[in-house]
Amino acid sequence: MSPAHFARRAEKLQPSSIRKMMIIAKRLISEGRTVFELNIGQPDVPCIPVFLDAIAARGREGRLNYAPFIGENCLRQAYARYLNDHFDRRGAQHLVVDSENVLVTCGASHALTSTFLSICDPGDEILCVEPFFPPYTGFLGIADGVLRSIPTYAEQGFALPTIEEMERYITPKTRALLFTSPSNPSGKILSPQEVTRLARLALKFDIFLIADEVYREMVLGDREAFSILQVDLEPAEMERLKHRIIVIDSASKAFSLCGARIGFVISRPEIIQKISLVNAHTVACVSDILQHGVAVAYEHVIKNPSFFTELRRTYRERLEAAMEAIHKYLPWAIVPRPDGAFYVMIQFPEIEDITEYCLFMLEKFNVDNETVAVTPAASFYLSPGRGRNEMRLALVVSPEKIKRSIFIMAEAYKAYKAYLKEQGKDIVAQNSRRLSNNDRGYINQENPSDCTGCAGYSVEAIVE
Amino acid sequence: MSPAHFARRAEKLQPSSIRKMMIIAKRLISEGRTVFELNIGQPDVPCIPVFLDAIAARGREGRLNYAPFIGENCLRQAYARYLNDHFDRRGAQHLVVDSENVLVTCGASHALTSTFLSICDPGDEILCVEPFFPPYTGFLGIADGVLRSIPTYAEQGFALPTIEEMERYITPKTRALLFTSPSNPSGKILSPQEVTRLARLALKFDIFLIADEVYREMVLGDREAFSILQVDLEPAEMERLKHRIIVIDSASKAFSLCGARIGFVISRPEIIQKISLVNAHTVACVSDILQHGVAVAYEHVIKNPSFFTELRRTYRERLEAAMEAIHKYLPWAIVPRPDGAFYVMIQFPEIEDITEYCLFMLEKFNVDNETVAVTPAASFYLSPGRGRNEMRLALVVSPEKIKRSIFIMAEAYKAYKAYLKEQGKDIVAQNSRRLSNNDRGYINQENPSDCTGCAGYSVEAIVE
Repeated sequence: MSPAHFARRAEKLQPSSIRKMMIIAKRLISEGRTVFELNIGQPDVPCIPVFLDAIAARGREGRLNYAPFIGENCLRQAYARYLNDHFDRRGAQHLVVDSENVLVTCGASHALTSTFLSICDPGDEILCVEPFFPPYTGFLGIADGVLRSIPTYAEQGFALPTIEEMERYITPKTRALLFTSPSNPSGKILSPQEVTRLARLALKFDIFLIADEVYREMVLGDREAFSILQVDLEPAEMERLKHRIIVIDSASKAFSLCGARIGFVISRPEIIQKISLVNAHTVACVSDILQHGVAVAYEHVIKNPSFFTELRRTYRERLEAAMEAIHKYLPWAIVPRPDGAFYVMIQFPEIEDITEYCLFMLEKFNVDNETVAVTPAASFYLSPGRGRNEMRLALVVSPEKIKRSIFIMAEAYKAYKAYLKEQGKDIVAQNSRRLSNNDRGYINQENPSDCTGCAGYSVEAIVE
Repeated sequence: MSPAHFARRAEKLQPSSIRKMMIIAKRLISEGRTVFELNIGQPDVPCIPVFLDAIAARGREGRLNYAPFIGENCLRQAYARYLNDHFDRRGAQHLVVDSENVLVTCGASHALTSTFLSICDPGDEILCVEPFFPPYTGFLGIADGVLRSIPTYAEQGFALPTIEEMERYITPKTRALLFTSPSNPSGKILSPQEVTRLARLALKFDIFLIADEVYREMVLGDREAFSILQVDLEPAEMERLKHRIIVIDSASKAFSLCGARIGFVISRPEIIQKISLVNAHTVACVSDILQHGVAVAYEHVIKNPSFFTELRRTYRERLEAAMEAIHKYLPWAIVPRPDGAFYVMIQFPEIEDITEYCLFMLEKFNVDNETVAVTPAASFYLSPGRGRNEMRLALVVSPEKIKRSIFIMAEAYKAYKAYLKEQGKDIVAQNSRRLSNNDRGYINQENPSDCTGCAGYSVEAIVE
């Protein structure tokens, strides 16, 4: 082998399945096709206007300077104020966050990569809740770490297993538990009991607990997201837990600022200091002008909390439109109703490999020159075979467009079946059926009294 | 050890010495002190105005979106056009760059980190030319790689050793040669012969050749920087070399846009594709709005090449002011005249550890409430003991402020000597003298005919 070879970690990296679909969609759009892009969490909602005013004002000063590698003080302070305010406004008990607890990163992706680089030696493991955001694998791969997963199931409202069940996945190499609530892709909001269970598990094995809370404000039902910062344990346990918690956040979804690339790590100052050095040695620092703009956005929502009320209304309308259209056009699909975030997971029970259908719809099918891009769900799972008949739909366009998209999906499915038939193939998976829990090698030992938190999550549609 | 420990790579990372001084300087400024910040390459020159107009226009569209992880097409195209134009305008033969050869990164820091992550397995080595930009060590540390260095010396105009000399530093773990021209900190522009020598060395050992060219436009004398893209070898060798070249660039210095965090990797498409996946898994993508602004900046300088002529004039005036003031106030200092970039390296021959003096000047000394921040040079070297009596001064303020700064440095030096005397210490290093080449374990075998390129680099001041 030539000494000028690529590193093993680079050879392993793959474009995320989400990005792969995006590239095809963009090509089709450039060729004149109308593509409803439900494949990526890129909202069509305009960004928060005060951000634009703030960067224009900063620009008029004519200087774009290096920022401190830990982040601009104005943004660290504004973010800490916003976070405390978020809980205080709801009368929720929580750990109080100070600017010293806040690190600014180049988006939540960079927050996670920097965290993994800070805590994982090559071969170390992070244990996450499955289904999960697929790029986690690659973020951890950058640190030569290995992702492991605790499976959860739609049929059980994605409820977390018991501590005893989860322990089975912990090895001497496990450095942290990682969970996302509200979850991308499942939309599950973990109950206070479930989050507390994760905290106890982290303490029992003395590992870090990483909470990806980028969808905190995106609540689609009556139940708020329960933050890791709200966990309430005995004082001695709390004191230990404080040194284990790492929260990930982002301005991308909350303010429709995906292109600003501003994220956060929230933790103890000594952990923040350590991760900030990784920050410094990966990107040097985050754009000062964009940090100033985002600081103004957080200050704005503290004064105008109705901003997030409006945002929730927008996404709830989209969810209603999606559920209604699915019921009408895809009545046989299995569709758990999400508690939060802005995604819907749809299971096509009779299909063997949904990727082929998704690519067929995108590339070979259209209704009046319109088609739909979605994300096949296999990459949201590590467990072999899971997600192969599921897709994720992002509620990032208007209710009308969502309804139209689901109509097109149904038409495309008919056409796909006909197309396969022409080729002498059969769409129906040989073992098409809803797997029981035992088939999945997972026995539900969930304490029923613990399940109230999952009540908002129900299977909406049934197998045909 | 608790499983919740930091990774070994994170434990090794240190804030760069440049940043350490910045933090102290910023604290003093917030306390009311005037600090001339010659410690960091953050120019006071206003940023290119068309950039601000472009981001304001883009902002008015109200959308900040995820960008392709390889970069926005408009910027990849504009950068490729700029680079070809840079050479064509000078009638220089060069490898033609296409947008497919360009990756957009979050600054040159991220370009380097992503490159190292792409080519270095844990323990692999990168061999760079010393003195070098200190964060290289940490960028490579992120990939668990190890930096090695080929020493060069001010007394020899920082000339590169012969191929035979340089070979001694290559091991089976060497994955790439890395050089910066114009160099930060030395200001050296490598001659065409020297760059070609590095190319031949890379080919001989079949390793990558990484050229950090972020100061390409910052030329302080008559001689242009010679790019790795200009190397001219036999066709068969060129074909191999094309697959080994990785160029690093940035918009930070050229357009005074340090806070935009836009950098570039230029290489073969298959190498660009690979590094783009590391990009995707460290920061997801680079801010779309800032990419559009920087694209307009590159388009602007293609049409208005006088932009860089003016920029060069600005920095040349500063260099003249610095050399004049050093001659007047620090006549005993050893100060090689830089060919490019915007730094001056100053040796205080009689001092044992210049860091103490730099900290004394910054924290304990002032003239009419004014003082100066500079960077002690030890971190620019890996060779033990080197740079301990050197500092780097960045020409990032007006000629008047540079002169004033050097006056304050001279006054601070007198005060520092008096301060040490009071404490019964002696400033003068026991072995204070200019080391001969042999003392450094390096015999100059430079071919004299090869040295014309170094002529612009001379020792301006002499040992007291």
